[in-house]
Amino acid sequence: MSKLKVLNAESINKLLDMGSVIDVVAHGYGSKEDGSGVIWPMIYYEFETDKADMDIRSGYLKNQGVYGAKLLSWFSGNSNNGLPELSGTTMIYDAKTGSPKGLVNAAALTGLRTGAAGAVGSKYLANPKSHKLLIVGAGNQAAFQVLGQINVLPELTDVSIYDPIDSDNAVKFAGNLPDILNQKIMNSEKVSKNVAEIKNRISKINFSAVSNIEEATKGADVIVTVTPSTKPMLKLAWITPGTHLNTIGADMEGKQEVDENIFPQAKVFVDDVTQATSVGETQTAIKKNLITKSDVTEIGKLVKANKKNTDFSGITIFDSTGIALQDISAAGLAVQRADQLNLGESVDL
Amino acid sequence: MSKLKVLNAESINKLLDMGSVIDVVAHGYGSKEDGSGVIWPMIYYEFETDKADMDIRSGYLKNQGVYGAKLLSWFSGNSNNGLPELSGTTMIYDAKTGSPKGLVNAAALTGLRTGAAGAVGSKYLANPKSHKLLIVGAGNQAAFQVLGQINVLPELTDVSIYDPIDSDNAVKFAGNLPDILNQKIMNSEKVSKNVAEIKNRISKINFSAVSNIEEATKGADVIVTVTPSTKPMLKLAWITPGTHLNTIGADMEGKQEVDENIFPQAKVFVDDVTQATSVGETQTAIKKNLITKSDVTEIGKLVKANKKNTDFSGITIFDSTGIALQDISAAGLAVQRADQLNLGESVDL
Repeated sequence: MSKLKVLNAESINKLLDMGSVIDVVAHGYGSKEDGSGVIWPMIYYEFETDKADMDIRSGYLKNQGVYGAKLLSWFSGNSNNGLPELSGTTMIYDAKTGSPKGLVNAAALTGLRTGAAGAVGSKYLANPKSHKLLIVGAGNQAAFQVLGQINVLPELTDVSIYDPIDSDNAVKFAGNLPDILNQKIMNSEKVSKNVAEIKNRISKINFSAVSNIEEATKGADVIVTVTPSTKPMLKLAWITPGTHLNTIGADMEGKQEVDENIFPQAKVFVDDVTQATSVGETQTAIKKNLITKSDVTEIGKLVKANKKNTDFSGITIFDSTGIALQDISAAGLAVQRADQLNLGESVDL
Repeated sequence: MSKLKVLNAESINKLLDMGSVIDVVAHGYGSKEDGSGVIWPMIYYEFETDKADMDIRSGYLKNQGVYGAKLLSWFSGNSNNGLPELSGTTMIYDAKTGSPKGLVNAAALTGLRTGAAGAVGSKYLANPKSHKLLIVGAGNQAAFQVLGQINVLPELTDVSIYDPIDSDNAVKFAGNLPDILNQKIMNSEKVSKNVAEIKNRISKINFSAVSNIEEATKGADVIVTVTPSTKPMLKLAWITPGTHLNTIGADMEGKQEVDENIFPQAKVFVDDVTQATSVGETQTAIKKNLITKSDVTEIGKLVKANKKNTDFSGITIFDSTGIALQDISAAGLAVQRADQLNLGESVDL
């Protein structure tokens, strides 16, 4: 009988700080580049069109000695019953013995690792002197994106929130953001190395809602789009040279957040070429033959070469669709820390 | 925060009796036939050739309102470290909300549902008046096969065990079988409806080891092959008319337990045509063009039509390769019973 560590949302929030998740997510991207990380085929099933689906993302991280699978479900009707729309589990197994090591609340983990994805994009591509961040979207994931960006952009002075559907919500969300962010930091205080530094950065940032998306886009150094949109919201003409975009929202066919005409004008990076060009933000530019797959580079290449972008004369894009190696690397870290700190619940399997 | 039921090997043995697992596995096969059961693509990865691998089998049972995934790993080196070679987990989710419902020890479950698979084969294809059962193989799974067959063949008088590698092991295993079987029944006593009946059947059966496989095959009414063999052990000439074969062992390319020439002479049933003809016992007969896919019928067709074989003049084969619906239906039943009986461990997720 083996012991399995069960880590619920509360444990995950205690065990994983954004700074460390950014590091392991970057490591996950890099491992894909050098072949030490393996992604297995994704399984997707729609229970009800546009209302309920699930996917299984799985893979193997040789250097971390773990493999695993995440099953994440989305049931849009859940909000009527007071249940979360997103739920699921990430299982981690020991690659030396196959023994199950940990079961992790996948929704909690997904928030962190997706925030970390945008952060890795900005860390490797954006101007580190960026002052102005625009977040398009004001849902649950938006706060994780802001926290991720604050971790990698030390000179941020302004964070603007645009909600394409509900401008009142943007005002409310922007007002609450400092508290939300400080809460997230406090949760992971015991494991984080930069609590004081991030708190200090937050205290100096001006958080505000914006209603004029054209103006906000023109003024931004870094933009993160994180909505379920199926229509482009940002136009090419609004994007100024030197802007970096993290497009996070699109993860299935038909989704789109920004003008596809931006792509031929930009240096385009993705987490996974096959996935990004078929279901990511990159899909529309590819379908319309504005760019080809050879114009798209996996960000793991930069991570592996330890080579950050230094040319800020043009536009850069990081299209994140979400790969299993993010989840497995972050879950692996959480389980490792849980064992060290004796946190989480240990059950006999 | 949702509650998740964790069911370890001990709980599974208490919660699942072979009789009920046979019923739900049959239901799983039937659901595949009428489309209410959906199997998602299998993921397979070999960590080290012929030494360590894992697979993920997943699917959806609409009528039971659950979907799920089993990840099962095989690490042959584990026996040197006192660890089980097979380990893994089966996760079950609520198809109305996506909420994780249960985590089940997959190795414990696999033993039962595989034993049940052979039993469904005999229930629908073998002569119910069969007296003589031959089991080829004397490993952990062999006992589950015997228990399954006893459940569906009420007139069994003789169970013979043949171990193709170690005849001493067959003698030892045959000697221990009554105790092993009675132990398995006792574990699930609280949930089983036919404990006394099965105990009575066991007490009347003669369990013995055989070393002459030709003679044993000729004398058998029902044969179950359950080895990791890659070479045929049973010849066509030895199989007498009226014999039913459950071929359980072959589940990947290159595996084979019986003469492929038996197939064109037999009525061939499988759990899944695609899987059986590519990685099951059926693969060799297909590759050598002895039969075509159209000669192969899924057993779910018989289950759905509630139509048992009544013509015992020829040879019948059930080739079981293992499908996710077996695991999900059995795990679903275990979780349902665990909730009713307040068994297993409940953890916050």
